[in-house]
Amino acid sequence: MMPHMRQNGGYYKMAESMQGLKRTNRCAEVGTADIGREVTVMGWVQKRRNLGSLIFVDLRDRSGLLQILFDENNIGTEGFEKASSLRSEYVIAVTGKIAKRSGAVNENLKTGDIEVIATDLRILSEAQTPPFPIEADSNTKEDLRLKYRYLDLRRPDIQANIMMRSRVATLTRAFLANEGFLEIETPMLCKSTPEGARDYLVPSRVHPGHFYALPQSPQLYKQLLMCSGYDRYMQIARCFRDEDLRADRQPEFTQIDMELSFVDIDDVIDVNERLLAYLFKEVLNVDVQLPIQRMTWQEAMDRFGSDKPDLRFGMELHDVSDVVKGCGFGVFTGAIENGGSVRGINAKGQGAMPRKKIDALVDFAKGYGAKGLAYIAINEDGTYKSSFAKFMTDDEMKALVTAMEGEPGDLLLFAADRNKIVWNVLGALRIELAGQMGLLDKNEYKFLWVTEFPQFEWSDEENRYVAMHHPFTMPMEEDLDKLDTDLGAVRAKAYDIVLNGTEIGGGSVRIHQEDVQERMFRALGFTNEEAHEKFGFLLDAFKYGVPPHAGLAYGLDRLVMLMAKCDSIRDVIAFPKVKDASCLMTEAPGTVDAKQLEELSLDIAAAEQDDK
Amino acid sequence: MMPHMRQNGGYYKMAESMQGLKRTNRCAEVGTADIGREVTVMGWVQKRRNLGSLIFVDLRDRSGLLQILFDENNIGTEGFEKASSLRSEYVIAVTGKIAKRSGAVNENLKTGDIEVIATDLRILSEAQTPPFPIEADSNTKEDLRLKYRYLDLRRPDIQANIMMRSRVATLTRAFLANEGFLEIETPMLCKSTPEGARDYLVPSRVHPGHFYALPQSPQLYKQLLMCSGYDRYMQIARCFRDEDLRADRQPEFTQIDMELSFVDIDDVIDVNERLLAYLFKEVLNVDVQLPIQRMTWQEAMDRFGSDKPDLRFGMELHDVSDVVKGCGFGVFTGAIENGGSVRGINAKGQGAMPRKKIDALVDFAKGYGAKGLAYIAINEDGTYKSSFAKFMTDDEMKALVTAMEGEPGDLLLFAADRNKIVWNVLGALRIELAGQMGLLDKNEYKFLWVTEFPQFEWSDEENRYVAMHHPFTMPMEEDLDKLDTDLGAVRAKAYDIVLNGTEIGGGSVRIHQEDVQERMFRALGFTNEEAHEKFGFLLDAFKYGVPPHAGLAYGLDRLVMLMAKCDSIRDVIAFPKVKDASCLMTEAPGTVDAKQLEELSLDIAAAEQDDK
Repeated sequence: MMPHMRQNGGYYKMAESMQGLKRTNRCAEVGTADIGREVTVMGWVQKRRNLGSLIFVDLRDRSGLLQILFDENNIGTEGFEKASSLRSEYVIAVTGKIAKRSGAVNENLKTGDIEVIATDLRILSEAQTPPFPIEADSNTKEDLRLKYRYLDLRRPDIQANIMMRSRVATLTRAFLANEGFLEIETPMLCKSTPEGARDYLVPSRVHPGHFYALPQSPQLYKQLLMCSGYDRYMQIARCFRDEDLRADRQPEFTQIDMELSFVDIDDVIDVNERLLAYLFKEVLNVDVQLPIQRMTWQEAMDRFGSDKPDLRFGMELHDVSDVVKGCGFGVFTGAIENGGSVRGINAKGQGAMPRKKIDALVDFAKGYGAKGLAYIAINEDGTYKSSFAKFMTDDEMKALVTAMEGEPGDLLLFAADRNKIVWNVLGALRIELAGQMGLLDKNEYKFLWVTEFPQFEWSDEENRYVAMHHPFTMPMEEDLDKLDTDLGAVRAKAYDIVLNGTEIGGGSVRIHQEDVQERMFRALGFTNEEAHEKFGFLLDAFKYGVPPHAGLAYGLDRLVMLMAKCDSIRDVIAFPKVKDASCLMTEAPGTVDAKQLEELSLDIAAAEQDDK
Repeated sequence: MMPHMRQNGGYYKMAESMQGLKRTNRCAEVGTADIGREVTVMGWVQKRRNLGSLIFVDLRDRSGLLQILFDENNIGTEGFEKASSLRSEYVIAVTGKIAKRSGAVNENLKTGDIEVIATDLRILSEAQTPPFPIEADSNTKEDLRLKYRYLDLRRPDIQANIMMRSRVATLTRAFLANEGFLEIETPMLCKSTPEGARDYLVPSRVHPGHFYALPQSPQLYKQLLMCSGYDRYMQIARCFRDEDLRADRQPEFTQIDMELSFVDIDDVIDVNERLLAYLFKEVLNVDVQLPIQRMTWQEAMDRFGSDKPDLRFGMELHDVSDVVKGCGFGVFTGAIENGGSVRGINAKGQGAMPRKKIDALVDFAKGYGAKGLAYIAINEDGTYKSSFAKFMTDDEMKALVTAMEGEPGDLLLFAADRNKIVWNVLGALRIELAGQMGLLDKNEYKFLWVTEFPQFEWSDEENRYVAMHHPFTMPMEEDLDKLDTDLGAVRAKAYDIVLNGTEIGGGSVRIHQEDVQERMFRALGFTNEEAHEKFGFLLDAFKYGVPPHAGLAYGLDRLVMLMAKCDSIRDVIAFPKVKDASCLMTEAPGTVDAKQLEELSLDIAAAEQDDK
């Protein structure tokens, strides 16, 4: 607080009242058409410069910047003195006339050719110097920015993200309402279900020893709404998972959630393709080519080593098992003999990569489960550097290079293992290399539907097949016979929508036939009793007439992250949490009174209390 | 399941596939203009009637009913037999031609003059007989309906409510987006603050012994967003309060929440009046007269004994203290001598109310804190029956009746006590009598702004003044001086929007001046340390430049309840909870695995475990 502002005593000296004033415009919502007009603008002081006998202030609000000119001839002596006291982040109200800018035009600014000749100034709030500058592309450490998130949120790039997110939500709702979707709110205080990720629990005070769970998704409720005849449901729904946080996860996240009755896959895909095209056109002026390409899960794995392939670049996987199956390199032949495969990718033009960088790639691959990574660097003269040439004949090497479409200057990288590991390794390596090679253009948007996912995946941990999506996912009609014989071969009527290598949404046709559902539970190893314990009310509902239905949910955070060309979902969430699920600004979670715990009939476990 | 449907074995016998079929219309979205057109409709069997050699089915979806006619000549023998097997709530798909109805037109039905001559029928799902009929105005006990909520939600009146709610949300968002409001999501996993109602807590696994709290409202976050320059914020936000449930409360409820920068009361009122007028016009075709009437809190209490007066009828309070202050009735004079008052209401035309009903009113009044209720029933001949005539002279009685504008046939009811009790009692009695007298017309909508609330209210329990709204509410400028001298007389820049005697929303101008905020905390008895402990991050944020701001939040559940002319918010919530905060359908809250508690470092308190 500046002491001179208080000199007259009274309550409003350091924060003048805006009584009698009315803002006429936001800062950057005026232009040359308004020249000569009197306006009242309000906002934050971005910068003050004294230039001879004039004072210039860049005034900021969410719309942008507007230059204010304080000239003692116009604002008077008292006003000019007040203007002299302005510092960054003061909140002020200015009245004055819009004029053509007297100084040089600022081409980088929407309002760069105009300024306001101030005739009145009120200081609505003073400000301390913020701990970091309020500017785009901040170099400030994220932890400090998150502690002062209310200041970080003033930065124009974050403001643009949050405003884009708002626009995406608004447009999504309008589009879906127009398509006959009803917005229906589902509960947050739910029943804990043991299936899936770890629930956040909420202890009940009225029912001691009992807990609600926060929803991991509105899955069961939206299926119930279909049973209840609501036909088309949508909700932008908060979801919760108590998982160890990875870079792109938050304990609470937001889904654009939908479910449709009397539909099959194509209906769901149709409405969602039009939604995506609408959003990208309206928000980014990007034309999404419809229909969006579709690819089966099997093809995605074979060609890209990933169920969410990034199609902005090639560098596809080649299965060279047949080429090397008789070679002298035991790592290759061993993998094939154990039922695995040998596959490679061709990093075009990377043949001259230094050994150190190749070693780093090997380490990277090991992080994804590879035991090693074999490579052939093709020199410009056609000779090879290779980690395994000594085990191969010249003809074998030539055949391998040919199969990989290797040309002088290329770097060929191979993984040999069980298919799952080979895909994992090469899929990740492909993205890593593309990043190094500058192939990941954030201005390019490549969409893809991945379909025909496996219904089950083997869990080594549980020593049984588990549902890859959830136990209500409909198997493909032609695979129903395999439900009793060959679970690994059953494909699901499930689909993911992938954008630039990120899964932005996914869904499935649901089982609506009681007998199919029973066989599904049997396949998953649930007894009738267990199934009923877990999903009783849904199974009960299905007994009273259930329509065929299907749905899809987007991760809104991820979608907006890609649209805003950010690297972290924290940049598109107003108040995100950090890796340990805490909020650096509010310091949540926090301790609570003993009385609160007592009301909930809870004790902190003794081991933890001893630690204190 | 009907056994004949399974006779051929296979997976799809009891639930035929809809493969190859595409729904062309919802049931009640066809009309006479479609006569001759082939349609495919899908839905639930409401009713099947056999009439001679014909079968009629009322098919139901969310749009309404459509009559299907099965004639063996058109649908064939197999199809006709299938139609014969249809029972209530079977889900079917029907293809056929729309025709003018052959039988009598049903005037009560949107599609009452047409029918579909079925040429194809598929049974998509069979159904057991539901435990109660799927029909409007159900007589089924609410507990049973809530246990089978997925069936209850099929009833057309509930469907209309849920669809209206969706429409209110959609229109609200569109309107506010158009007014420059940004939709911004605030966290659900928050910090527990000791002020206000009881928080729902969420134990942290990563930070043992620490808890998140579910938000009671996004209040602090929306004020931070104003500090961050977002200018206009809105959110349809889920909020949580762990209170003992009254009839119109839910543990989780929904607010239409908003906050605006650089505004004063009139700006908030302006945008909200236009929002309400828009909603009521679009949804109910009701014209809301703007501007909406405003009344100070003091006037509302004096005239209606309530800070949320129902203006659909009169029956205003009369302060007769001056009239009776010298009378012989000690109850009256005693109340006045103790600083209270004597006030009455005139129930026009209720003078012949039987003694039993009057006694019931006395008991009703006692429930609101009255020690008794004095009355004068004016007979048609001008004589009185009165509980206290014997203490009064004739002149005193006449003066009192005159003051009350009593006429033959009227019933005058009086309360004498502290003002607060008198208002409470007569305010409640006024509504009770209006109900009995049939004055509460659900088709009439009377809006009112109540303004100038007291800033503080005395808490007998805490023996101090507490904030009536919240501690960030701005006092009226002219009352600032009383912050140190006369807390009871300080009025707040707070406002409620009242509809038909229900507070549907409320808000205030916020304090944005650090010195006023400090004085407010002092008035509330907080030390600087306590204030910082409770609201530290907001107070910190205010140091860096804060705009004048104000906001408002609606209870969406209550608003829709009134718009849908329901008596309970449970009728406008898809999956409500009951009084003990449990869900009868999912049986939440439930018990959880010992492992889950262990991960959260929690024990159930010993006393509770012993009970098991």
